[in-house]
Amino acid sequence: MSSTIRNQSQKAGLPPGHLIHVGQKSSSDNKITVIDFNPEGIHQKVISSVDDIFKLEDKVTIKWVDIEGLSNIEQIRKIGTHFNIHELVLEDILNTNQRPKVEFHDHYIYIVLKRWELEHKPFVIGYEQISILILNNYIFTFKERPDNLFNPLISHLKSNKGMLKSRTTDFIAYLILDTIIDEYFNLQEPLEDSLENIDNVLLKNPTTETLQSIQRIKRELIYVHKTVLPLREVINSLQNRNFTLITDETRVYLHDLADHIIRVNEAVDSYRDIISGMLNIYLSSVNNRMNEVMKVLTIFASIFIPLTFLAGIYGMNFKFMPELEWRWGYPLMWGLFIFIPVSLLIYFKRKNWL
Amino acid sequence: MSSTIRNQSQKAGLPPGHLIHVGQKSSSDNKITVIDFNPEGIHQKVISSVDDIFKLEDKVTIKWVDIEGLSNIEQIRKIGTHFNIHELVLEDILNTNQRPKVEFHDHYIYIVLKRWELEHKPFVIGYEQISILILNNYIFTFKERPDNLFNPLISHLKSNKGMLKSRTTDFIAYLILDTIIDEYFNLQEPLEDSLENIDNVLLKNPTTETLQSIQRIKRELIYVHKTVLPLREVINSLQNRNFTLITDETRVYLHDLADHIIRVNEAVDSYRDIISGMLNIYLSSVNNRMNEVMKVLTIFASIFIPLTFLAGIYGMNFKFMPELEWRWGYPLMWGLFIFIPVSLLIYFKRKNWL
Amino acid sequence: MSSTIRNQSQKAGLPPGHLIHVGQKSSSDNKITVIDFNPEGIHQKVISSVDDIFKLEDKVTIKWVDIEGLSNIEQIRKIGTHFNIHELVLEDILNTNQRPKVEFHDHYIYIVLKRWELEHKPFVIGYEQISILILNNYIFTFKERPDNLFNPLISHLKSNKGMLKSRTTDFIAYLILDTIIDEYFNLQEPLEDSLENIDNVLLKNPTTETLQSIQRIKRELIYVHKTVLPLREVINSLQNRNFTLITDETRVYLHDLADHIIRVNEAVDSYRDIISGMLNIYLSSVNNRMNEVMKVLTIFASIFIPLTFLAGIYGMNFKFMPELEWRWGYPLMWGLFIFIPVSLLIYFKRKNWL
Amino acid sequence: MSSTIRNQSQKAGLPPGHLIHVGQKSSSDNKITVIDFNPEGIHQKVISSVDDIFKLEDKVTIKWVDIEGLSNIEQIRKIGTHFNIHELVLEDILNTNQRPKVEFHDHYIYIVLKRWELEHKPFVIGYEQISILILNNYIFTFKERPDNLFNPLISHLKSNKGMLKSRTTDFIAYLILDTIIDEYFNLQEPLEDSLENIDNVLLKNPTTETLQSIQRIKRELIYVHKTVLPLREVINSLQNRNFTLITDETRVYLHDLADHIIRVNEAVDSYRDIISGMLNIYLSSVNNRMNEVMKVLTIFASIFIPLTFLAGIYGMNFKFMPELEWRWGYPLMWGLFIFIPVSLLIYFKRKNWL
Amino acid sequence: MSSTIRNQSQKAGLPPGHLIHVGQKSSSDNKITVIDFNPEGIHQKVISSVDDIFKLEDKVTIKWVDIEGLSNIEQIRKIGTHFNIHELVLEDILNTNQRPKVEFHDHYIYIVLKRWELEHKPFVIGYEQISILILNNYIFTFKERPDNLFNPLISHLKSNKGMLKSRTTDFIAYLILDTIIDEYFNLQEPLEDSLENIDNVLLKNPTTETLQSIQRIKRELIYVHKTVLPLREVINSLQNRNFTLITDETRVYLHDLADHIIRVNEAVDSYRDIISGMLNIYLSSVNNRMNEVMKVLTIFASIFIPLTFLAGIYGMNFKFMPELEWRWGYPLMWGLFIFIPVSLLIYFKRKNWL
Repeated sequence: MSSTIRNQSQKAGLPPGHLIHVGQKSSSDNKITVIDFNPEGIHQKVISSVDDIFKLEDKVTIKWVDIEGLSNIEQIRKIGTHFNIHELVLEDILNTNQRPKVEFHDHYIYIVLKRWELEHKPFVIGYEQISILILNNYIFTFKERPDNLFNPLISHLKSNKGMLKSRTTDFIAYLILDTIIDEYFNLQEPLEDSLENIDNVLLKNPTTETLQSIQRIKRELIYVHKTVLPLREVINSLQNRNFTLITDETRVYLHDLADHIIRVNEAVDSYRDIISGMLNIYLSSVNNRMNEVMKVLTIFASIFIPLTFLAGIYGMNFKFMPELEWRWGYPLMWGLFIFIPVSLLIYFKRKNWL
Repeated sequence: MSSTIRNQSQKAGLPPGHLIHVGQKSSSDNKITVIDFNPEGIHQKVISSVDDIFKLEDKVTIKWVDIEGLSNIEQIRKIGTHFNIHELVLEDILNTNQRPKVEFHDHYIYIVLKRWELEHKPFVIGYEQISILILNNYIFTFKERPDNLFNPLISHLKSNKGMLKSRTTDFIAYLILDTIIDEYFNLQEPLEDSLENIDNVLLKNPTTETLQSIQRIKRELIYVHKTVLPLREVINSLQNRNFTLITDETRVYLHDLADHIIRVNEAVDSYRDIISGMLNIYLSSVNNRMNEVMKVLTIFASIFIPLTFLAGIYGMNFKFMPELEWRWGYPLMWGLFIFIPVSLLIYFKRKNWL
Repeated sequence: MSSTIRNQSQKAGLPPGHLIHVGQKSSSDNKITVIDFNPEGIHQKVISSVDDIFKLEDKVTIKWVDIEGLSNIEQIRKIGTHFNIHELVLEDILNTNQRPKVEFHDHYIYIVLKRWELEHKPFVIGYEQISILILNNYIFTFKERPDNLFNPLISHLKSNKGMLKSRTTDFIAYLILDTIIDEYFNLQEPLEDSLENIDNVLLKNPTTETLQSIQRIKRELIYVHKTVLPLREVINSLQNRNFTLITDETRVYLHDLADHIIRVNEAVDSYRDIISGMLNIYLSSVNNRMNEVMKVLTIFASIFIPLTFLAGIYGMNFKFMPELEWRWGYPLMWGLFIFIPVSLLIYFKRKNWL
Repeated sequence: MSSTIRNQSQKAGLPPGHLIHVGQKSSSDNKITVIDFNPEGIHQKVISSVDDIFKLEDKVTIKWVDIEGLSNIEQIRKIGTHFNIHELVLEDILNTNQRPKVEFHDHYIYIVLKRWELEHKPFVIGYEQISILILNNYIFTFKERPDNLFNPLISHLKSNKGMLKSRTTDFIAYLILDTIIDEYFNLQEPLEDSLENIDNVLLKNPTTETLQSIQRIKRELIYVHKTVLPLREVINSLQNRNFTLITDETRVYLHDLADHIIRVNEAVDSYRDIISGMLNIYLSSVNNRMNEVMKVLTIFASIFIPLTFLAGIYGMNFKFMPELEWRWGYPLMWGLFIFIPVSLLIYFKRKNWL
Repeated sequence: MSSTIRNQSQKAGLPPGHLIHVGQKSSSDNKITVIDFNPEGIHQKVISSVDDIFKLEDKVTIKWVDIEGLSNIEQIRKIGTHFNIHELVLEDILNTNQRPKVEFHDHYIYIVLKRWELEHKPFVIGYEQISILILNNYIFTFKERPDNLFNPLISHLKSNKGMLKSRTTDFIAYLILDTIIDEYFNLQEPLEDSLENIDNVLLKNPTTETLQSIQRIKRELIYVHKTVLPLREVINSLQNRNFTLITDETRVYLHDLADHIIRVNEAVDSYRDIISGMLNIYLSSVNNRMNEVMKVLTIFASIFIPLTFLAGIYGMNFKFMPELEWRWGYPLMWGLFIFIPVSLLIYFKRKNWL
C-alpha cells in the first residue's frame, strides 16, 4: 500500500521547474531504443545518447524512441529542449505518481498511463508508469524499468510491414496503447486462482487470515479500478478532440480501444461484486461455526446436568430415605440415566440440532 | 462465472486485423439461412456458401441472412469484403465477449447484444451473442449457436404478409430486437421458483447452502443487469440519431422497445431488492436459531445447577448436621426440588422465553 | 410480489399490432360513461357502445369519456380507429404493466399512470393502471376496474360550474391527474398504523415475524416509489414541452402538481428512512435479548457452580478430614453458602448486570 | 414524525381554488404588523385589518407587512385579490406542508421556506413555515405563529438607518432570509449537548434507549437536511435568474447567503457522519459487553467444573479406594484445589481475558 | 470536532457589514510582511501599519503583502477601503469558517482555502484559513496565525530571481497555492504511522479503544476530504474562467495544480478504503475472540460435566450397588475418567477446535 500512495511527498515544497525523478529508482541505466519505420522495413537500434536521435531528424520516416529507466535526467532534458516540450510535462514524465491523463499541447500530445503487472503471487500487482509523447514524425515512450513489454508488438510489426503502410504516429500510439491495455487480461488467471483458493476454505475453515486475503484482493482491485477508470476519459479525449495529430482512420481504432476499457472496467466491477459476496459468506460462515460450538455445549450441558442432579439426590445422607433401601432402586436409576438422555437427544434431533 | 469474464484474454496481445473466433466453440458447422421478402411472399432457404447471397444482390427485395455458428471465419470474411464492412466490426462479430452496443458506419449499422437463456436449473443463465448488420437491402444476423430463436418470428411473418408491406430493413431489425428482448420474460418463471424455494427454507432451516443460493442468484441478476443496462443506450441511439437507414415509422416502434427495456430493468431491480431482503432475513434467522439454542442451555442450566447444589449440601459428611436426622428432611427436599424449577419456569415464561 | 412483476410475460414473443388485454381480468363488462361539459351544465350518461360517442362529435363542447374495464377490446379498437390513435398506444392501454409515462403524438397526448389503493390490511397496496388520452375536444380515461374514483371530482364539478368556464381538455386532464395523485395521501394512515404496531413490539418482543413485516412494508414502499418517481418526469414533460394542447394557464396548475409529487416522493423517502431505522433497532433488540439470556445463565452458573464445589469437598469420604468433626463446621459452611452469592451479586450489580 | 409527514392529507381530493389552512392551528388570532421604511426612519405599527395596508399604497416608501398566524383566511384572500396574487400561491401560503421553493410570477416573487426551532429538549426540532411575497414596494411575510423571530432584525434596522438607504424590497427580503437561515446555528448547541450525552454512556453502559436516542437524532437531522437542501436551489434561482425585482447589488449578498447554506449543509452532513460513527461504536460496545459476560461465565465454569469433578471422585463410595485411607490425602486434594485454579488463571491472563 | 463545526454560530443574527473576527483568537498581534519583487531582487520587510503599503503604490513592481493574525481588524478595514474590496469579502477574510472558494470581482480575485497541519500526535489535524487577494500589482495573503509556512517559498524565490522574470501576480498566487496544497503530503507519514499502529493490535488484541482510533482517523479524513474537494472547483474556475488577471502561461501551471489536487483526493479516498477495511477486520476479530472464548468454555464443560456425573453415580448411597464392592471398580472408573476426555479431545481436534 504505502509504495503506491506514499512517495508522492518526495517533491513537496519545491516550486516547478526542477526535474527530479520521483519514484522507485531502478539501478540500471537508461536504455534508449530507436525504431525507424522505413518504407522498406523496420530498423531497430539501441543508442547510447539522445543526440543520435536528433541526427535522424532530416529523414521523413516515422521514428519511435523507447526510453527505459528514468534515472538519466540529462538525456530527458535534452529531448525536452530539442523538441520544445513544456517543463511541466518533463516533470510529469519523471514523477511516476501520475494519474492516467492526456494533454494536448501545441505540436504534441502527452499521454501518461499505468501498466499492470503481477508483482508476486498470489495476487500482488505492480504498476509501471508509461509516458507517451506523440509528435509529427516522432513518438516517444518513457518507461520506469527495462522489460520486454513492447517486444511482441515490435516483432509483429516487423513481420507485417503492410500493416503500417501510410500510417502516421497516432496509429503507432494506438498500437502501443492497445498493447498496454491488453496486459490487463494477464491478471485474470492469478486473480481467479486466488479467488478459488479463498472459496475453498471459506465454508470449511474460515480464519481471520481468510478475511485478510479477501481484504487484500479487494484493495488491489480498488487500485486497478483507479488506474483503469481515468483511461476512459483519456481515450475519449483522444478520439473526440479535433486535433491534427489524430487522423480519422485512427479514431475508429480508438473507439474500439474505448470498448476494451469499458469491458475491463466491467470485469473489475464483477470481481468486486464477487469479493463482497465472499465477505458476506465469510461472516456468515464464522457465525455458523459459533452456532455449532454453542450447540455442542448445549447438548452436553443439557444432558448431563440433570443427570448429575439425579445422582446428587441419592448421594444425600438423610437418615430416612426409603428409596436407598429398595432392591431395584439402583437399577431404576440406571433406567433414568438412559431414558433421559435418549429422550433429550430425540428432542434435539427434532429441532434439527443434530 | 469464469466463462463470462475470463475468456476475454484469449486475444490479448494481438494487434487488430486478425479474425479469430473468441468464445465457446460450437462443434457444429456454420448454418446460413436466407429469407427473401418478396412482394408475393417470404422464401426461406438454407444455403451452403455465402456466394449464394451475392447472386441475389440484383433483386430489389429485402434479404435477411441468418448465420448460426461462428467457426467458419472464411465465410464471414467474404461477407465483410463484399459489403465493405470495417475489419474491427468483423472482429467484434467473432469475439463473443462484446458489451451490447450500436455503431453507425457509413452505409450500415452494427448492433451487438446478448440473448438470455436458462442454461440449467434452478437458475443458471446462459448468454449468446447476437450481432446484427443493417444495410440498405440486407440484414445480417450472426449467432453463436444454431437454435430456433427466430423460428416463431419467421413463421409469424409468413402468415402475416401484409405486416411487412413497404417495410424496410430497419423494421425487420426492430422485429428481431423485439424477439430477443422479449426472451427475458421467459426467465421470470424459473427465477421466481428459485426464490420461492429459498423463501421456504429461509425461516425454518437456513443453512450456509441457502446463503450460497441467495448469492448465486444475486450474481446472476448482476450479470443480467449488465447485459440489459447498455441496451437502453443502444435503442436510444437507434431512435434518436438521425441516420438514413432508420425511418420515422420505425422510430415509434423503437420507442416502444425502449419502454420494454426500462421495464425489464425495473423488474431486475425489484428482484435484486427481494434478494437483499432475503439476505437480511437469512442473517436474522441464523441469529434467532442461536438465540433459541442459548435459551435452551440457559433454562436447563439455571434449573438444575441450583438443585444440584442443594443435593450437594446434604451429601456432605459433617458430623453435626441436624437436618439429616429429621423425619421430614428428605420429603422437604423433594418439595424444594419441585418448587424451585416451577418458580423458575414461571419466571422464564414471564420473560417470554418459553 | 409476483402479480406486480410477473405477468408482463403474457405477451412475450408476439409482434406488435395484436391487441390483447394483459393483466388481471375483471369479470364485469366494460362500463362507458360520457360526461358532456355544456355551457349550461354537466351531463353525465352511461352508454352501451362507443358508437354513441361518435354521434356527439359535431357538438363543440368538451366530452370526457371514462371507460372502466378493459376486456371489451372491440370497443377500444373502434375508438382507436375513429380518432386515429397509434396501434402501440392501444396496446399500451390494454397491457396493464406500463410504467408511468407521457407520449406526445400529432393530435393527442397519451398519459399512463398507476393509482394506489389499500388492497387489504395491514398494508398491502393494489395498483390500477389508468390511461388518459387528451384530444382537442375529447378526453378519454381507461381504467382496469369500475370503481368510484372519479365520483367526488364529478360531483364537485357539477356544483361548481364556474370553475370550468372557458377551460379546455388539458385543464380537465389536470383535475383527473390531481385526483389520482392525491389518492396517495389515503395510504398514509394505514401505513402509519402498521409502523406503530411494529414499533410497539420492536423493543419488547421482536420475532422473525416482526422482521418480515418490516421487510414487507419496505418492499411495498419500493413499489410505491417506483410508481411515483416517473410521475415527476411525466408532469415535467407536460408542463415544459411546447405542445398546443397544453395552455399556459394549465401549466401553472401542472407546476403545482409537480410540487405535490415531489412532496409525495419525499414522504415515501422519509418512511423508508424510518423503516431502515426500525431494521437497526430490530437487530439490536434481538442482540440485547441474547445478551439478557447470557447474563441470566452467567449469574446462575457463576453463583451455584462454586457453591456446588464447596459442598462437593465435604462430600468426600477421606478418613482424615478434621473439619467434618468440628461442631461449627456445618453452620460455617452455611455462612459461606450465603456470603459467596451475596458478594457475587454485589459484584454483578456493580458491573450493571442486574 | 407523524406531524411532519402526515397532515398533508387534509386537503386530499379537493380541486384547486379552495383556501383552507392546512397545518397546526394556532389558537391566537392573526397579528398584522406594518413596517414603513421612510427616508426619515422606520415606523412600525400593528394594524387590525389589511385594509389599512391598502391606504398606504400611494406612499412611495417600501412597506414590509408581517402576518403572524394563518387562521384568518379572509384577510389573506383580500391581500391576494388586491395585489393580484395567483390562487395557487395563496393556497401554498395557507398549506404549511410546503417544500422550500421560489416562484417567479409576473409582478412578484413567492418564496416559501422552513424555520428551525428547538421545540423541546434534548433535541426535538419544530418547524415553522414562512412565506415571503416580494412586490415592487411591498414585502409580505406570512408566519404560522406569532413569535419574536424578526425583532432583532427590526431593532437593528431602526438603529442603522443608513444601511437601507436607496435599498429596494429585494434587499429587505435578503435580510429576512439571512435572519431565518442563521437561526440554524442556534440548533448546534443543544445538538452537541445531546451528542455528548450519548458519547458518555456509549462505552460504559449502552442500552436500547441509547440506540433510540441515536436514531431519533439521526431522524431529526434527516428532516433538517430535507429543509436545508432545497434552499440552495431557492437562493441560486434568486441569484441567477434575470428578474427585474432582484438588483445586481443584492445578488452579491445572495451569493454570500448561498455560501452560508452550503456550510449549514456540510455541518449537517458532518453531524450525520458522527451519528453513524456512534451507531458503529454502539453496536461494537454491545458486542463487547456480551464478550465480557461470556468471559466471566467461562472463567467461573472452567475453574469450578473440574474442581467439582475432583471432589466428586472422592465422594464415591467404592469399597477399595486406597487414597481415602491416606493420611495426607485430604491436604493433597486442597493442594490440587489451589493449584488448578491458579494455573487456569495464569492461562487466562496470558490469553488477555483478565 | 466541535471547534471545526461549532463556532460558525458566533456571528448568527448579525446583518452584513460588521467586521468581526470569528474563530480562534491568536494572542499575538498582526504581523505584516511586504515582499517587493524588484527587477534587481526581492526585498522583504516587516511593517507595522498598512499605511506603509499605500506609499509603495507608485512603484510599478509587484508587491506581496502577507498579514499574519486577524485580530487587528482596523488594518484590514483600511486595506479594504483603499483597494475598494467588497465588505462581504472582508467579512469572509475575518470569519475563519469559510469553505474553500474563489470569487471573481471587478478588479480582483478572492481565494480562500484551508491549510492542513498536524496539530498533535498521533493524527489530529489543525486547519488554518488562508485568504488570497489577487490585484493587478498587489497580492495579499491573510493567515490566522504567524507561522513559517511561506519561508521556504520566499527563500527559494530569493535565490532564483530568473524564475519570476516578467511574471505577474497570478503566477505568484500559483506559487502560494502550490505551497499550501503540497503541505498535504506532510500528513501522510503520521497518518500511515497511526494506521500501522492500529494494524498491529487489530488482530492480536482489539479493544473498543481500537475502534475509537479507527473512527477518529475516519473522521479526520472526512474533514480533510471536505477541505480538498472544493479545491478542485476553485482551481478549475481559476483555470477556465476568462479573467484578465490570469495569463495563459499561468493557466498551464494551474492545470498541473489541478492534477495535484485530484491525486490528493484519490489518496484520501484510498486511505478511507483502508480504514473501512480495518473496521471490517476489527469486527471480525472481536467475533473471533468471542468464538475462542466459547470454545474454551465448551471444551471444559463438555469434558468435565459428564465425568462429574459419573463420579456422582458412585457417590449415591443405595444399599444394593454391586459395583461398589468390586475389587477393580475404582481403577475401572479411573480408566473411564481418562478415556472419555481423551476421546472428546480427539473429537474436538477433528472439528478443528484445538
